[in-house]
Amino acid sequence: MERLTIFDSTLRDGAQGQGISFSVGDKLHILELLDELGIPYVEAGNPFSNPKDREFFREAAGLSLKQTRLTAFGSTRRPGSTAEKDPGLAALLEAGTEAVSIFGKASAFHVEQVLRTSREENLEMIGDSIRFLASRGREVIFDAEHFFDGWKQDAEYAEAVIRTAETAGAQWIVLCDTNGGALPEEVFHIVSEIKGKTSARLGIHCHNDIGCAVANSLLAVQAGAVQVQGTLLGFGERCGNANLAALMPTLQLKLGYNCIPAERMAELTQYARALGEIANVVPDAGMPYVGSSAFSHKGGMHIDGVMKIPASFEHIDPASVGNQRNVLMSEVAGRAAVSRMMGGEIAKDSDMAAKIVALVKEREFLGYQYEYAAASLQLMALRQQENFRPFFKVLYSRTIGEQTVEDQRTNGSSAIVKIQVGDTCEIGGGEGEGPVHALDRALRKAVGKFYPSLERTRLTDYKVRVIEPKDATAAKVRVLVETTDGREVWSTVGVSRDIINASLQACVDAIEYKLWLDSREGKF
Amino acid sequence: MERLTIFDSTLRDGAQGQGISFSVGDKLHILELLDELGIPYVEAGNPFSNPKDREFFREAAGLSLKQTRLTAFGSTRRPGSTAEKDPGLAALLEAGTEAVSIFGKASAFHVEQVLRTSREENLEMIGDSIRFLASRGREVIFDAEHFFDGWKQDAEYAEAVIRTAETAGAQWIVLCDTNGGALPEEVFHIVSEIKGKTSARLGIHCHNDIGCAVANSLLAVQAGAVQVQGTLLGFGERCGNANLAALMPTLQLKLGYNCIPAERMAELTQYARALGEIANVVPDAGMPYVGSSAFSHKGGMHIDGVMKIPASFEHIDPASVGNQRNVLMSEVAGRAAVSRMMGGEIAKDSDMAAKIVALVKEREFLGYQYEYAAASLQLMALRQQENFRPFFKVLYSRTIGEQTVEDQRTNGSSAIVKIQVGDTCEIGGGEGEGPVHALDRALRKAVGKFYPSLERTRLTDYKVRVIEPKDATAAKVRVLVETTDGREVWSTVGVSRDIINASLQACVDAIEYKLWLDSREGKF
Repeated sequence: MERLTIFDSTLRDGAQGQGISFSVGDKLHILELLDELGIPYVEAGNPFSNPKDREFFREAAGLSLKQTRLTAFGSTRRPGSTAEKDPGLAALLEAGTEAVSIFGKASAFHVEQVLRTSREENLEMIGDSIRFLASRGREVIFDAEHFFDGWKQDAEYAEAVIRTAETAGAQWIVLCDTNGGALPEEVFHIVSEIKGKTSARLGIHCHNDIGCAVANSLLAVQAGAVQVQGTLLGFGERCGNANLAALMPTLQLKLGYNCIPAERMAELTQYARALGEIANVVPDAGMPYVGSSAFSHKGGMHIDGVMKIPASFEHIDPASVGNQRNVLMSEVAGRAAVSRMMGGEIAKDSDMAAKIVALVKEREFLGYQYEYAAASLQLMALRQQENFRPFFKVLYSRTIGEQTVEDQRTNGSSAIVKIQVGDTCEIGGGEGEGPVHALDRALRKAVGKFYPSLERTRLTDYKVRVIEPKDATAAKVRVLVETTDGREVWSTVGVSRDIINASLQACVDAIEYKLWLDSREGKF
Repeated sequence: MERLTIFDSTLRDGAQGQGISFSVGDKLHILELLDELGIPYVEAGNPFSNPKDREFFREAAGLSLKQTRLTAFGSTRRPGSTAEKDPGLAALLEAGTEAVSIFGKASAFHVEQVLRTSREENLEMIGDSIRFLASRGREVIFDAEHFFDGWKQDAEYAEAVIRTAETAGAQWIVLCDTNGGALPEEVFHIVSEIKGKTSARLGIHCHNDIGCAVANSLLAVQAGAVQVQGTLLGFGERCGNANLAALMPTLQLKLGYNCIPAERMAELTQYARALGEIANVVPDAGMPYVGSSAFSHKGGMHIDGVMKIPASFEHIDPASVGNQRNVLMSEVAGRAAVSRMMGGEIAKDSDMAAKIVALVKEREFLGYQYEYAAASLQLMALRQQENFRPFFKVLYSRTIGEQTVEDQRTNGSSAIVKIQVGDTCEIGGGEGEGPVHALDRALRKAVGKFYPSLERTRLTDYKVRVIEPKDATAAKVRVLVETTDGREVWSTVGVSRDIINASLQACVDAIEYKLWLDSREGKF
């Protein structure tokens, strides 16, 4: 297997993505995650421009990383000064990392128009800075900023920048498509050309502004780049950086390069999702390899095909990246999917399967979605069966809340829920941070009186989606709830113009599903 | 300009994407949108497998499309039968479209293992079906399913499929990477090879399973394909189809192909967002060209650069695709961004700018996000100024709700809000679909008594984001509200563990901002 060096910039370029905001604790947590995943280089911030990053490097010094070399990021020295006197380079050294990456401009246009200095001074800034950092024992990674645009405008100058960095002792020279506009064939040809002119180890750093960051990175590797920069979920300035979760499996499983340990590759999905959790971003469901839909089949014919032979509609085994195959229930799926989702309890050709498909269509029209709420789907099917008796019935619920606009503080809400089991009624009361929290507690208390096994269940996830945002505060909302009893995890859904009502539906389904699981095991 | 034919499958392949569900009305609406945008071919569904699609084609027959040729989608005839007797082909004809697209297998593996018929029979199925449809006056677009995988396994057979389709009279032969696993250089080389062997007009149909759908489509065009299939926002089975919003600007603005009328290209962002609205999907903020972050600059240096010379960090002028440049406020942005966001009222080097940057950092830590809530940011800055007096103060609010679990029905909620203006208090009451709706009404009523200009303001968007979903119903939520007075539109934010409290904060900011706008105009 050919060796290829992966370089992750989630903590630096990724932090420049819209909607991304990391605390120092988040950054430390992500660094450990990437170390465990086996990423060789992690670029973690700019200690000069950002005080939070300085604190991060101080705290990171205490970690014992096993597979990752921590890298601090900064700029070449300022024009008209010296490397020794440059506060940015001093801050880079202070960060105390083995490796440092510094960027310098590889475009004559940028040197003259943005940096507003001379071409010669820019080359000296690059050379001085690299020599200075190397003389202090650092492994220097040079980012040739705007390299592809620079090459297209003035190839000779772009080449001079690369030669200067090589001569000064940069251990890696990274070709950056900073604005993300380079075309795939351009990247392939330009990397091939520069490869023929230097013996430096070349890296590639792509942005996704024309949707080609992944392909451009692959083509750069095929043209001779030996380091690939990106971010695990594609976070980054504007349209983001090359998505390593999409790139690494192709490089490793299809092209035979060694990116991360094989056993970690088989857990990639779990690492990608863990990063999403810390970053508080739900990764795009359609993300290659690791997205929740990446191996989801919805079209009836695709479902039929994949049930016969998985490879028929999958380019790779989902298990090779820790993901799994899903068959989605929806109006385009049909009876085969109903049968499969119900564990074969309902025959594909039965009237019941047809009835459930019709019901799914009807309820999807109202705003329900069963793709992520399999337990609610199962309950809906059970409720169609003649012998199904509900375990309890909610008669009403009332919530009372009090709010001030003082930030963050809640005055608490209270709720009462009246339920019926057989001929007996029970009223449960509860308090909570807000009305939904109070209601959930009151409901569990009332139902739990009859079914003590509920004690072990707890909600683990709560999501709200406004379905028709244009109706503003009267808009219909969809609530998805995830629940566990420590052994199983299930998801339920509720829809209403009243968020509390939608939450109540999802919570009722969550409890009813647990009781159904218990009843199947003969618990009552 | 070279002519290139764009083919959109949002209504067919797109509808197979996870989370996508179109009503007949949605489909008609989208068809009109794509016609207006100037998309030459729109594939709109399978009239045989889906009753909703049959209804759609009946209704679509009444539309007078100006630029789009409507296309019905189906399969080649069944094995061991004839085209004349095939119910799928009959349904295709019944759809009454000028053009039809039919798919047939171009992979010997699929023919034998999934379709379970002979290679010869498959060729006959393809030939018969195309001849049959062509003889009925249809323009036939043949989708060579699994073409790239088929070529890699048995190029001779894949080629035989293409020749069969060409001889039978297909007007277009579309090479499909059905499983989305083909590599960029493979696509380029295989399309180049087949191009040398046929005089048929070739199309390309890519999926995004390895993140290369856009690049693969570009390379196929450069290798000689003259039709590009995709979906406007990339919707589609699994990881989606080639995203036309990402592809068309590159083809038209960078490579000189003519995809859609130039004046429509300059409105592409608006069309893409309109599709998102109908599909009820918020397009990925980082989507190339049309995403809300596609030209958003967050890093301090990028902001400085782009303020000097836009082209320094933008690969294209955002106006050329109807998008716009944003400068994002965040802890990585710094004082220049504060100054710009405040319209220069606060100097970049002032203590006030530093104070606001610090406050943003502190509040982002609590869960606030100002990137999408510029009005709340502005208010936060105003509140720091000595001479700022709030227009009103909320003393308390109380909400009462009643819910049943009967689907969809809400019993209504009520709210009372007590506010103070100067020395006068006012209590407003309101009812609504849920507690937030009731509260918003009560608040406006109370404040509106003092400031009648509020009458013209209304909320136009309401979004909820659960920040720490793992805390389930006690999780912190962030509410974003968009408000308009008919002239201006502004966005505000609130954060709390109580969704009603978070909503109250955002609504209070929304009103306060309007009052501030009015006061600047000397209205009071």
